[in-house]
Formats: sequence, C-alpha cells, structure tokens
Amino acid sequence: MSDWQFALRTRRATELGRAYMRVRALSEALARPLDVEDQCVQSMPEASPVKWHLAHSTWFFEAVVLRRRFGYRPYDRRYDALFNSYYLSLGTSIERAARGLITRPAVPEILAYRRHVDRAVAAVLDDPEYAHLVELGIHHEQQHQELILTDVKHAFSKNPLLPAYCPAAPAVAETAPLLQWSEHEGGLCEIGHDGRGFSFDNERPRHIHMVRPFRLASRLVTCGEYRDFIDDGGYVRHEFWLADGWDLAQREGWKAPLYWMSPRGDRAFTLHGVRPLNPSEPVVHVSFYEAAAYATWAGKRLPTEFEWEVAAGDLPVAGRFLDPDALFAKPAPAGLRAQMFGDAWEWTRSSYDPYPGFRPFRGVAAEYNGKFMIGQMVLRGGSCATPPGHLRRTYRNFFPPSARWQFSGIRLAEDL
Amino acid sequence: MSDWQFALRTRRATELGRAYMRVRALSEALARPLDVEDQCVQSMPEASPVKWHLAHSTWFFEAVVLRRRFGYRPYDRRYDALFNSYYLSLGTSIERAARGLITRPAVPEILAYRRHVDRAVAAVLDDPEYAHLVELGIHHEQQHQELILTDVKHAFSKNPLLPAYCPAAPAVAETAPLLQWSEHEGGLCEIGHDGRGFSFDNERPRHIHMVRPFRLASRLVTCGEYRDFIDDGGYVRHEFWLADGWDLAQREGWKAPLYWMSPRGDRAFTLHGVRPLNPSEPVVHVSFYEAAAYATWAGKRLPTEFEWEVAAGDLPVAGRFLDPDALFAKPAPAGLRAQMFGDAWEWTRSSYDPYPGFRPFRGVAAEYNGKFMIGQMVLRGGSCATPPGHLRRTYRNFFPPSARWQFSGIRLAEDL
Amino acid sequence: MSDWQFALRTRRATELGRAYMRVRALSEALARPLDVEDQCVQSMPEASPVKWHLAHSTWFFEAVVLRRRFGYRPYDRRYDALFNSYYLSLGTSIERAARGLITRPAVPEILAYRRHVDRAVAAVLDDPEYAHLVELGIHHEQQHQELILTDVKHAFSKNPLLPAYCPAAPAVAETAPLLQWSEHEGGLCEIGHDGRGFSFDNERPRHIHMVRPFRLASRLVTCGEYRDFIDDGGYVRHEFWLADGWDLAQREGWKAPLYWMSPRGDRAFTLHGVRPLNPSEPVVHVSFYEAAAYATWAGKRLPTEFEWEVAAGDLPVAGRFLDPDALFAKPAPAGLRAQMFGDAWEWTRSSYDPYPGFRPFRGVAAEYNGKFMIGQMVLRGGSCATPPGHLRRTYRNFFPPSARWQFSGIRLAEDL
Amino acid sequence: MSDWQFALRTRRATELGRAYMRVRALSEALARPLDVEDQCVQSMPEASPVKWHLAHSTWFFEAVVLRRRFGYRPYDRRYDALFNSYYLSLGTSIERAARGLITRPAVPEILAYRRHVDRAVAAVLDDPEYAHLVELGIHHEQQHQELILTDVKHAFSKNPLLPAYCPAAPAVAETAPLLQWSEHEGGLCEIGHDGRGFSFDNERPRHIHMVRPFRLASRLVTCGEYRDFIDDGGYVRHEFWLADGWDLAQREGWKAPLYWMSPRGDRAFTLHGVRPLNPSEPVVHVSFYEAAAYATWAGKRLPTEFEWEVAAGDLPVAGRFLDPDALFAKPAPAGLRAQMFGDAWEWTRSSYDPYPGFRPFRGVAAEYNGKFMIGQMVLRGGSCATPPGHLRRTYRNFFPPSARWQFSGIRLAEDL
Repeated sequence: MSDWQFALRTRRATELGRAYMRVRALSEALARPLDVEDQCVQSMPEASPVKWHLAHSTWFFEAVVLRRRFGYRPYDRRYDALFNSYYLSLGTSIERAARGLITRPAVPEILAYRRHVDRAVAAVLDDPEYAHLVELGIHHEQQHQELILTDVKHAFSKNPLLPAYCPAAPAVAETAPLLQWSEHEGGLCEIGHDGRGFSFDNERPRHIHMVRPFRLASRLVTCGEYRDFIDDGGYVRHEFWLADGWDLAQREGWKAPLYWMSPRGDRAFTLHGVRPLNPSEPVVHVSFYEAAAYATWAGKRLPTEFEWEVAAGDLPVAGRFLDPDALFAKPAPAGLRAQMFGDAWEWTRSSYDPYPGFRPFRGVAAEYNGKFMIGQMVLRGGSCATPPGHLRRTYRNFFPPSARWQFSGIRLAEDL
Repeated sequence: MSDWQFALRTRRATELGRAYMRVRALSEALARPLDVEDQCVQSMPEASPVKWHLAHSTWFFEAVVLRRRFGYRPYDRRYDALFNSYYLSLGTSIERAARGLITRPAVPEILAYRRHVDRAVAAVLDDPEYAHLVELGIHHEQQHQELILTDVKHAFSKNPLLPAYCPAAPAVAETAPLLQWSEHEGGLCEIGHDGRGFSFDNERPRHIHMVRPFRLASRLVTCGEYRDFIDDGGYVRHEFWLADGWDLAQREGWKAPLYWMSPRGDRAFTLHGVRPLNPSEPVVHVSFYEAAAYATWAGKRLPTEFEWEVAAGDLPVAGRFLDPDALFAKPAPAGLRAQMFGDAWEWTRSSYDPYPGFRPFRGVAAEYNGKFMIGQMVLRGGSCATPPGHLRRTYRNFFPPSARWQFSGIRLAEDL
Repeated sequence: MSDWQFALRTRRATELGRAYMRVRALSEALARPLDVEDQCVQSMPEASPVKWHLAHSTWFFEAVVLRRRFGYRPYDRRYDALFNSYYLSLGTSIERAARGLITRPAVPEILAYRRHVDRAVAAVLDDPEYAHLVELGIHHEQQHQELILTDVKHAFSKNPLLPAYCPAAPAVAETAPLLQWSEHEGGLCEIGHDGRGFSFDNERPRHIHMVRPFRLASRLVTCGEYRDFIDDGGYVRHEFWLADGWDLAQREGWKAPLYWMSPRGDRAFTLHGVRPLNPSEPVVHVSFYEAAAYATWAGKRLPTEFEWEVAAGDLPVAGRFLDPDALFAKPAPAGLRAQMFGDAWEWTRSSYDPYPGFRPFRGVAAEYNGKFMIGQMVLRGGSCATPPGHLRRTYRNFFPPSARWQFSGIRLAEDL
Repeated sequence: MSDWQFALRTRRATELGRAYMRVRALSEALARPLDVEDQCVQSMPEASPVKWHLAHSTWFFEAVVLRRRFGYRPYDRRYDALFNSYYLSLGTSIERAARGLITRPAVPEILAYRRHVDRAVAAVLDDPEYAHLVELGIHHEQQHQELILTDVKHAFSKNPLLPAYCPAAPAVAETAPLLQWSEHEGGLCEIGHDGRGFSFDNERPRHIHMVRPFRLASRLVTCGEYRDFIDDGGYVRHEFWLADGWDLAQREGWKAPLYWMSPRGDRAFTLHGVRPLNPSEPVVHVSFYEAAAYATWAGKRLPTEFEWEVAAGDLPVAGRFLDPDALFAKPAPAGLRAQMFGDAWEWTRSSYDPYPGFRPFRGVAAEYNGKFMIGQMVLRGGSCATPPGHLRRTYRNFFPPSARWQFSGIRLAEDL
C-alpha cells in the first residue's frame, strides 16, 4: 500500500468512525427523555419498544459485521432469539407482536450490550472489508431512529394521560405559501441510484423510465386544506376512495388523520402532547388510502415515484429533518419545490415493485429489502423524524397502504 | 340517417344481439350440470354462489343499461339488496360473505328474472346509445362465467364426497415440449389498448413504456417441474419466498398447489373429480407467492406485464379456452410462444397500478376497475376457464397475491 | 316365551313402530314447505341445514341401533364423514361450520337414505334388545325437529327478503292473564326422573334436593312487559346485567330480543314472515343474559331448575307445543301455573351440572349429554316448537347463556 | 359512648390499622424483586401489570372508602380512567387488554399514590362507619397479591430468557404420602359463611344443602400421577374430556400442564426459573378441563364445592400459603385431609352459581362478585400464592374452566 493509499484509507476509517459514533449517540439521546417503562412498551404489532430498537440495531452490527470476523465473541448468544427482527437465515426469533414482553434484559443491560458492540466495531473500522457493512449498519440504525419516534408517539397516544415526549417547541407563526405547480416535461428519465456513495439495494439499478409530462404541487397539502376535504364529506363519500381503503375506514371508524383530536382539526396529539394544529402546517399521519382519496376529491392525483424523483432533480437534500435540539421548530420553507425533503414522507402512486434488473444485497442482508416487495406503496422525501444525512433523492421508503403512524403526508400531481 | 348508415347500424345491432344471446346461453349452460343446492352454496367470502352469478350478471344489465331508459320497470326492486356486488353509488347490499344465504329467490325465479331482462335488452339493441353498455354487460357476464367454474370447483373441493362437475374428458397423452426461451430486445414499447373494439378502462390509455431486453419461457411451468421445486424444499426453505407469502404459507400449512391431493403431485381434485395429474400439464392453482418462490428457486423471475404484452406481440388470440363441450381436452400447443393465451392465467411481477393517464369508465361503471387498483397483482393471457372471445392481448386480470382458486400458473422470464 | 309374554312384546313393538313412523313422518313434513335450497343453507355455526338434520337423525339410527346388528350394510360408508355430529368414538366428521357445504348428496338422495334405514329399523322393532335404542333414536329425532324450525327461522332472518316458512295463522286475540304468584314451601324435594318410561341420562338419578320457600310467576313474561324493560333503559343500564352478558350485548349491539324489527316491539320476524307483535304473547328469543337482566330489573330473579321442577309438580304435560297443522295458533292458557309446558323454554338460574351420582348412557350414546355439561344453562318446559309427546317434567334442555335463536323465554321467581 | 365502648373501638381500629399496614407492605414487598419494566408488562388480557395491581388496589380504597368522605381530594382524578377495573358505576376505563400501555404514571409515582391513600385511610380507621369497607379493601388487595405472582410468572414465561422471580429455594426432599380416602356420610349440611368475621358476599347466606355420602382423596394429585395420565394418552384420547375442553386443548395444542417444559414432566418453569419437577409435589397450572379429564381417566370425579366444604369441617385453616421469605419451601403436609388449605386451589365440579338467597354487597361493591356468576367454576382451599390470613373454609374462588395460569390443582372424590 502506498502512503497515499494508506492516508486515504485512514481518512475514510476516521470519517466512518465519526459517523458511527454520531449515529449511535443519537439513538441513545432519543431514548433519554423516556422513563424505563416507556422504553419497554409495544402498542401494536407494527411498532417495537424503544429498548428493542436500541438492542436490535446493535444486534444488526453483530449479525452483519462482527460475526464475519474470526474470534468475535457474541455478547449473549441468546440475543438472537430476542433481537433478530426477520432474518430467517439467522434463525427464528420471538414473534413480532411479543417484543413488548422482553422486560429482561433491562435497559442498563442493553446499554452495556451497545458498549460491547461499539468496542468491537471500533476495531474493524479501518478494515476496508467491513467498511461497507458498517456503513449499512449505520444507515440501518438511522431507520430505527425514525421508528423510535413514531413508535413512542403511538404508544403515548394510547395512554389516557397523553404524555409528551418533549416540551412544546416555541410556536412558529407559519403560513403556508400559495399552492403553485411546477411543470415537468418528462420523457426518458434516469431513475435510481448512480452508485456513487451509499445506497440501499432497492434504489438500484439505475435505469431509464418513460415519464409523461406532469405538474407537481409546490408544497405539501396542509391541515387546513385537508380539513376542507373532511368538511366536504371526505370520510363519508365512498366515491373518492379505493375499495380496500373504504372498507378499512368504515371498519375502524376513521373520521380524520390519526392523532387528530376531532374532525375539526383544531388540536392533535403530538410528541409535545396535545397542541393546537396550525392550518398551514402539512397534514401528516394519513394512510395511502386517505392520501389517494384526498387527491381524487381535489381533482388531482398522487405522483408516481418516478415523477417525484424527476421533479426532485438536483435540489439539495435539505429540509426540516430530525433535529433533536429543536424538534419540529424551524422556519417554513419556500419556493416552487418546497418540502420535497423533510417535513413528511410523501405517498406516491407507485407500488413497491423491484426495479428492472434488481439484485438484493448479498449475504445476510439479502433479506433487507427484496422480500418485502409486495403489498406496499413507495414513499419519498423523508420527514421531520428522519435523521439528517440519511436521505437521498433516490431513497425509497415503503409501507402498507393502511399505515398511518408514520409522518406521512400528501403532495398532489396532475397530467400536463 | 342514410340507408347505408341504417344498414350498418342494423348489422351492428344484429351482431350485438347474437353475442348477447350466445353469452347469456353459455352462463345457463354452465349451471346445467349442477343440482339446485350446488348453485346456492358459497364456500368462502371470495367465491359466490352460481345462482348469484346468474342473477348478478342480469342485475348488471338492469343497473347499467336498462335503468337509463325511461319507463323501464325493474323486475323486483328488492334485488338491489341481493345482487348488487359492490356498486356503492347504487346503495349497499347484503355483505359479500352472506351471499350463500340467499336461498330465495329460488333458481327458477332467477331464470325468470333472466328472461325478463333479456326481453328488455332485446328492445334496446338497435339503439346506439346503449350499444357500448350492452357490450360492457356481455364482457362482464363472461368474467362471471369463469368465476362460476372456479367457485363451483372450490365448493366441491370442500365436500368430503369430492363430486365431479362433469365427467372426465378422454385422457390426452400430452407431453410438455422442451422449455425454450424467446428473446426480446425491448426498448420503447407501446403498451395498452389502441381503442379499436372493446376494452376495459384499465387497459387504457395506450402509452410508451421502456422495456429492457429479456427472455421469456416458451411455455408454462409444468406440474412435473413444480414437483421438483417441492422435492427440493420449495415449501420449507424460506429463502425463495416473499415475507408475506412465507408467513401465509406457514399459517395455512401450504405444502403443494391448491387441490393437489398430496405434495407428490400424482393426483388432484378437478372439475372431473379426483384424477391423476399429468406431469406435462401446466401447474395451476398457485398463488403469486408460490409463482414468485418457484421463479426464485429456478434462478429466474416472473415477467412484468409489459414484457408479457410485448412478447405476445401479434400472436393470434388462440389457445385452450373454455369449451363447454370438451372441457379441458384439447391437444397440446407448440412453438416458442405456446400457451400465451388460454391454459392458465400467468402471474406477472407487476402490481395492478393505473396506467399513466388512466381514466375510469363514466357513470355507474366508474366503480368497475379503478377502485380495486391496490394490493393486487396483474395476470395475463386467460385460462382454460376463460370463455372464447373474451380475451385480448392487452387484457389485465388481477387478484391478490394470496389467491389460489383461479386457474393461475407460472411463466418464467429472465434478463437478457 | 309364554303366549302372554309374546303378546306383550308384540304390542310394545307395534307401539314403538307407530311412534317411529309418526316421528319420522313429522320430520319430513316439517321440510315440505321448503325449497331445496332452503334445506341446504347454514346461517351460523350453531345451526345446521334442514337436510343435514334429516340425514343426521337417520345416521343416528344406523350408528346407535343398526350397526350393532350382524350383517347390516350401511347405506353409504362415506356418510360418517358427513352426518356424524360429534360422536368422536365413531371418527371425526366435516367441521360443524361447514355443514352448509354438503350440497351432495342432494335432497332426494337423503330421502332415499331415510327409506333404507326405515326398512332396516322396521326389522328390529320386535327385538327387545334394540327397543330402548330405537326409543332413544326417536327422542333424538324429535330434538332435531325443534332445531329444524329454529334453524330455518334463523336462516330466513338473514335473507333480506325475509321469507315466511308458512302462511300466517289466523290472529288470536290473546290477552295475557294477570300476573300472579304461586307459593311453594320447598323443603326436601325429589328431583329427577323416577325411571318409569323413557328419559335421557341427564335427568337421572332421582335425588333429594333442599329447596327454600319460593314464589313462581303464574305465566311467562310478555312482550309488553319486556318492552317496559327496554323503555326503562334495559339495554343501556349495565347495573341489571351479568358482566359477560353486558360485554356481549355491547359488542353485538343488542337493543331488543332477536327478531324484533325495532326496540319498540311492534313487529317481529317469525316463521310466518314479519308480523305485528301481540304485547300479550310471551317474549321469546332472549338469551339467558337478557332473561337474567330482565329479572333483576323487575326486582325478581329466575327460578332454579329445582324450583321449576317442584312447581311443575303433577301438572299434566300439556300446553302449546308444535302443531304442524296450526302452528302457533291456539287459545291462551290460564291458571296459576300457565305455560309451564310449551310456549317457550324457560331459562333457569341453574348451570347445567351433572346430578349427584350421574352416569352417562353406555356405548356410543355416552357422548350424548355428559360431555356438554360445562358452560351452559338449563332450560325447562318445552316450547311451541317442541314436538308433542317429547317433553317431561324432569326434562333438562341446555344452551349457552348467549343463545338467542331458540324459543326461549322468561318466568320470574322470588324468595318467599 | 362508654369508656368500655371507646376502648373496644380503639382496639379494633388498632387491629384494623395493623392489618392494613401489613397487607399494604406485603404488596410492595412482592414487587421489590422486579425491575421497573417487569412491573409494567402485560402478557395476556387476563393478566395485569404489577404496577397496575399496586395502583388499582389503592384506587379501590379511594373509590370504596375515601370517596364517601366529605372533603377527600383524590390524588389524581384521571386515575379513574387508568385504575378502575370493572366498576361501571364509576365510569369506564382503559380496556382490560391495554393495561400494559400505562407506562405513565411511572412506578415511583404509583408509590407516591399509595402513600397519599395510606395517609387518608389512616385517618378513617377509627370511624366504625368505614371499618367494614377498609376490611373489604384489605381482602381485595390480598386477592391482587396472588395475582401479582401468577401474572409475573406468566409474563416471565413468555420471555425466551425465562427469568426467575426469586432464587430457587433449597430443595425439599418431599415424598407424597400414600393416597387414602376420607369417608363422609353427607346428609343435610350447612354451607356458607356464618356471619362471624369478614366474608365476601358470594359465601352467603348460610344455607342447608343435601349431600350424598362420598369419599375424598387424602391429598392432591401429584405430578407423578398426572404424568401417568399423560403417558396413558391423557391428551390424545377424547373419551376423558368435556367437549369444550377437548376442542380447546386441540386448538391450543395442549400436551401437558402449563409451564411444563415437556410432557415428560421432568422440568417446569417456576417463579425460581426452570427447575426439576418433583413427582411427589402437587400438579398445578391445570385447567378445569384437564382436572376433569384426569378424574375421568382415574375412574373418579371432582368433588362438588359442597362436598369440599363439608370435608374441610373444622380443620384449622393452615397449610402452605404464601411466605415471601421462603417461597414454596416448607415440609410436606400429612394426614387424611392434607393440603386442604394452601398448596393449590382445588377445582370443584360446581359452577359458580349464586347461593339461594344471595344478595350482593351494597353500593359500589355490588359489582364485586355477583356479576361474574356465569361461565365460571368454583375453586376451594387457597394456594401457595395465597397470602396467609386471607382464606376461609367457606371461601369461593372462581375462574373460567379454561384458566391455567393460577396455582390450580386436583383433588379426587367418588360416591360412597
């Protein structure tokens, strides 16, 4: 190895190490406002306890990185049965809906587990063989950081005391900018990740897609606009809805987005407890079904994920992402393509299908994305709970069309 | 109106009338081998009783065609509550799972209902205003003809006596041709219906799609090949499966395609009762999950619906479709693109999303297709239970990935 | 055998034969007003299709009587899998909820099955070894006659057309007699069957029970009285209800007895279709939960089964039982102990526990009663759907406290 | 008030105060070995979190005692919505299955709540008006002490780590005494509480019951004996089982008592973690269904609750009850009526019906027992988890026949 190569490798290891430390520290910072009991609870099968997130993201480094290394001694072999999420090639684990029963190991034990793994990862940072896997583990943990927030919010919403995760931010007198439309001529467009830097397998390969001319809304649908939809019978007029969505909404008695205290939309449960809703802020916690019904009511449609990616173009990946110091309290964005990044995940009218030529990660991580490519819809752009540095223009998030507990919102589109 | 115009219109009305009569007669012919009780039973919420199919397809002509006509007197206004399937704009009806409780009206009454509507439709055949709607009703009834057969098969399979719908056809000593691969260079391809003749709204509009080079198997996967998959652990090795499919297969204890009497694949329940399986015949009654798992096991993949349509090209729409006189008893097909039409619906790796620029039918029929464009996969090509004359190259059938009771099979593809 | 013995035996055989013929004929008479489809439908797991009742009561003679006979050839060995209800010692059968799927054998085939068994039973009537078992089979079939009526009623109630089983009887201008109270001093009372004539095992052995002094209402609770309960918040005030009953009533939205068209109690669905309710007629189709809640509201209680039996004393077993020629159309009863027999089964405040010293029937019939002695309440006295000649003073009927589809009503009691 | 009366009243208040303190302290002592997370978890709807038990038993004193007092300020009015179990007259509360979501108030807050209520109760101890209600609250809290142990055991059994609640007791080399039979001539027997000292309403009124001569086993069924039942096909031969029990056992795959690690009965999960089973110790954690099936297999039966009470006669209420200092580690009992008290609750063949003349408590406590008198079986005698001083000869415990997570065992009986 030349001096130059060595220097480069060292610099990369240092950068990776810093990213690792920063991300690992953020996970624990997110847990800090919580009582121990808050970290153990599971309020629905789709959500997980905070301590499980802390342990699982640690176990992931063990399973994907450290186990490949000769002589690594797992912290506790029984943790496979507790903290493996869905990697069947590593054995079966406690069923998903029972994660809330894991009262032991207690939180301090899980923090000790994190330290053990941190030390072991530190020792492999300068080995290029592991660099990509460590990077994968970092991005994986960031995904769980967002889930920590959404899962805590859901659990707290089920407690009649409606506790606050953190004190209310100072009110921002936000006014929604006028809704405008950016026009895009479409044509043959390159879609997917170009291979420079990190990406998940589901963003690849880059390929050509034919896109028809379209218009995209300059900002997200606001709470005030969504309330107009409700006032106009949005939840009682079947004609706006997909059949499955209508059935689900009837069965579960939906009358407004999740966490709204009433269909009037004046107050909602948030991570700061119950607080007034600003009609100018983006509506969040809507399912794909609600997003699609809103769009139909508005005489528009949802964009495809291809249109979204084309429209994002070369916009810098900046916006209101997770800021643990000033959660959800930043000035409003502006411009023709406002809120493309951050604020709220945007439901697209694209099923989560594999890209042409898709190949899953190799090894254990083969189960990371591919096996979920059925029954889900693509969301784009990240949210106010997405950690900074995590998102990309080509990033494909995905959830079932019924999911409401994510920070998911609506951007409209129409044919040109 | 000129003489020429009048002649044309008369000829069209005559043709439409003939098609109407032929299709209506076939529905009743399909019910004829059945006891009255066989026509009333519903074996699962997804299936419907035969007499319900006979009445609903009749009600559809009333709802979509005849009601528009001044002075039409409905046969019985209470039938809306019995025979409306899912047209919410026409009111709600008995819940889907309860269709088997409709013992009254009895079968003779339903046949009288059919006669009443036949007479009324005859009177509008030469009115061009109604022609397209009558045509829609005809194609709609054809769809229910296929369901009559699949639903009877399912109901009979639940009776320990395993009755036969019709006597066994003379055995055809069929041998599967060698599996070959047709190559397609892809590129910018026209997808969707061109507007000449009838089509459903979901096949439109015609649009350009970018298709990468691919190979398509020359025939369907056979029972013998599928048995190799089973023998190699197809139903016990998770690595071939999508996560949802694996969970469902475990939960329901799948070990072979629906209706196989054992994983050995030597005998299956059919519309002729239990009979030996020919290893050369196409495997049917597999879910999308099984089709996708098989493809992964085989080192291939399922084609997209775009690839399928491109490959079908200008092949004549001919194959082993429903032949009431010689059900499922025809010589084997041959050639590089055998069984593209008929034999078995082919699961594609395409979610049932709207085409760019999709617009639903207008009026009542707006609820025909669009509202189901979520949570389903596209199937192409028709089956041995599809009535002749019903299919098109651009025809998009759709079912949830879990559905097994249709004549659904597998054709493999791979990147070139 | 002496001439006298022979004559006695012959006379008994003749009587048994007549009873057999009469009961078998009644079952078929009850099916006669029904279309074939009506006989095949099953509207809930607890109910069975009419043709299943016709076949099962026939199979019972085969299983309990004829199989014991050397050389008897079963009509069709596969019928065990269709028409065995719950006799696990004779193998398992189609699951209870799937009886409605038995479209084959068709009704004519089942009638042929009945003839086959009738001939075989005729041949054993004069053999004393079989007499008791034939008698058991007769009483068993009578139980299914009542179920034929209650199950048809339930199935018809689910059809939006609300068909009538038989034409409305001429209205009887019935007036409920004044509610009076018969007093009973209790003490050490003999309970259970004395062994003379037929009885089920669950009525035995006769034993002494200590009964405290009590009063019993002179008649059943009427629809008018029950409506007062509703008007006073009967279905919205939890304080009258047992906890399980309250939960069930909330979950299922009970607001009135089953089959009432509204809580006003002016019209109800009956075997004659929808007809006005006479406030003087006994309320029927209430669960034990409703009966107990009514009693609490009224400041009374339900009688125990012991009190009921003591009060019945030596009353002749006469009342408004099933009369196929004049269903439910007889003059009102009178007296201090009116309606003790017939009209409506009376819920008692006695769980269906075994009597002290209880021994089940021997052989196959061991599964007849004993294994159901858990989770059920005792009802006494028979109903308007109980065939004449079936009931006894010691007769113990039993249903889960949630059951509403039987002709079950309320008689009040109180401590003296 | 005379000096004598005052002295008596003061002595009673002092005794009551001591009992109160002792019982309240024991509840907290039982929680002490647990992590905070262990106290928050709910492993099934029938179980509750430990912290909920601590809060609910405190809330009960507020609701039943303190609220009656002018000027009492509730600790937090919102606690009604969290800690009311089922007293509908005090409003509705969080649904039973969601008690595990109450992460807030945290454990220290609940302990502060306990202190607040303790102070307020102390102030009313010498007021005779409240004495009975305080006594009721004490007995109520004792019932929840037993549930704390059974619910923790269930929750820990669901954690793959199988944690121990407390370290294993020193092994007691226990040998089961020979099974003998005590004979009882029965006759007219007094049943129920005589009114001296505390009792629940369900033990009253005392009344005469006719009991036939019977024999009762001298001790509980042991694990070794129960294993013989298993080895002889206990869980695969339907003929021993009640129908509902058989269905449930099949559906849930029962093969041995709850917590046995295998049908061999060599190891079981206990509050000390997994440990070897002594064949001589009583079998526990069997449902009524299993108890009844065992008795049938053994050619015996379960005793009625009347027989049990008669047999208990004037035995001192002594046995192996809860001893927090030496949990489950005491010498074996001996004699003809061993283990009547303590060791394991004994399933009886008596449904939980009201005694003749039963009247519920007045006021809020009316909902204590009466509304649960349906669908449950009576258990007698207390268990190793019942706090000392809680039991009486006339004590009626009750659970659904399916319940297995209590320390419930089997004593045999037979007719004499």
